Amino acid sequence: MRFTSQTTSNGVSERLFTLDDVPGVLWSPADAAGHRPLVLLGHGGGKHKTAPSLVARAHHYVTACGFAVAAIDAPGYGERPIVQEGERLMAGIRERVTAGEPIGPHLARYNTVLVAQAVPEWRATLDALQELDCVGANGPVGYWGVSMGSMIGVPFVAAEPRITAAVFGLAGSEALAETAARITVPVEFLLQWDDELVPRDAGLALFDTFASPEKTLHANPGRHADIPAFELESSERFFTRHLVESGDSATAG
Amino acid sequence: MRFTSQTTSNGVSERLFTLDDVPGVLWSPADAAGHRPLVLLGHGGGKHKTAPSLVARAHHYVTACGFAVAAIDAPGYGERPIVQEGERLMAGIRERVTAGEPIGPHLARYNTVLVAQAVPEWRATLDALQELDCVGANGPVGYWGVSMGSMIGVPFVAAEPRITAAVFGLAGSEALAETAARITVPVEFLLQWDDELVPRDAGLALFDTFASPEKTLHANPGRHADIPAFELESSERFFTRHLVESGDSATAG
Repeated sequence: MRFTSQTTSNGVSERLFTLDDVPGVLWSPADAAGHRPLVLLGHGGGKHKTAPSLVARAHHYVTACGFAVAAIDAPGYGERPIVQEGERLMAGIRERVTAGEPIGPHLARYNTVLVAQAVPEWRATLDALQELDCVGANGPVGYWGVSMGSMIGVPFVAAEPRITAAVFGLAGSEALAETAARITVPVEFLLQWDDELVPRDAGLALFDTFASPEKTLHANPGRHADIPAFELESSERFFTRHLVESGDSATAG
Repeated sequence: MRFTSQTTSNGVSERLFTLDDVPGVLWSPADAAGHRPLVLLGHGGGKHKTAPSLVARAHHYVTACGFAVAAIDAPGYGERPIVQEGERLMAGIRERVTAGEPIGPHLARYNTVLVAQAVPEWRATLDALQELDCVGANGPVGYWGVSMGSMIGVPFVAAEPRITAAVFGLAGSEALAETAARITVPVEFLLQWDDELVPRDAGLALFDTFASPEKTLHANPGRHADIPAFELESSERFFTRHLVESGDSATAG
């Protein structure tokens, strides 16, 4: 892991890095000393590691919770070269969206190509991050990623025992069912009630599939990109519960 | 409104009252001065105005948010005499639960009897509470009630423009569809994924029916009575957003 730049704003240090050919970014408290929980952010389709919504989320988790937060460009996104096979499949998906046709099967094929490359990259990134003083080898790790961030994140979290809590959503592909069924850590799942890309029933079915004893579905009106602002705070509370406080599974009727 | 007793514990004043024949309870900060937001709590079936879960919820809202909180016994519950017609209908419902048969139509008939009496009682209670110095006539008012607390609360909130935010859940009766469709204030709706009394699809359909531009569904694994403890804090944030802070409907993709 090679750091290429460091800037600080509003008490948040932002360091760009590369690991092999993967560019990434690490946010942490500017005055960070010692180990802290880490949250990995998976960006959505068409976005990248420093998309404004990701930067705002990272700053919030750093300043409100003192977490370290990291993101990497997914294969073919941000600063990374186009993946030819992925590009070809994505062009077909765009055509179908334009035509108002279902994209499920095509998204599944695209996903297979993407995941095969992205999951090992995330694991290598996590290996390297845990060697840093401001993260540490044995601390709690969370994952946040919706839409494409879940298409990659669900298989990643299923394969990665170091991640102990995850926020997913805006996804319902059958391609995720097999890996979702292997996830047992607490999950917060975001569903947009009027999602034009993910059928409502497919999102509900994916939520149903997680094996996690604690999983919570948050559904809100609106289209794919319209997750309400208050869900940012909700995810902050979710990560605080599971990465900082002890898990409390008591009931309050 | 006649106050019959007052006790204080942990900084929370608890005053029992009667209004006509309806017994109620008002919780507020022991050092309360001036007007404050009010949250009305509707208890569930088989419970009453000072059931332990309601008292704990009221204490939390008072100490964490500084709200005033009130509850009344529903017709036939707590200190109130049995309602003969309701009792007869409820006996039939219990038989069907025991037999594992669907209770929807019977619950609807029971609900009609209950609501016709309970909604005017809640409105009269709210009238009287708003005359108190510690509440005030023009302050924001929220409603929280799941299960039977929603069977009464949905028609109550639909009929009551003073209520500006509501938490409902554990309900899916078609009897509520007509009134739910008239509700436009922000709603947080709790659904238990493995509810043995309310079919999952009926709960999802009721959530779909609310006309509220801002509504959020929280679904969690478990049976009817197993709402996770973290939903108490979530409802506190919901009421704080809508009764204290200005509503923020911005999106955070």
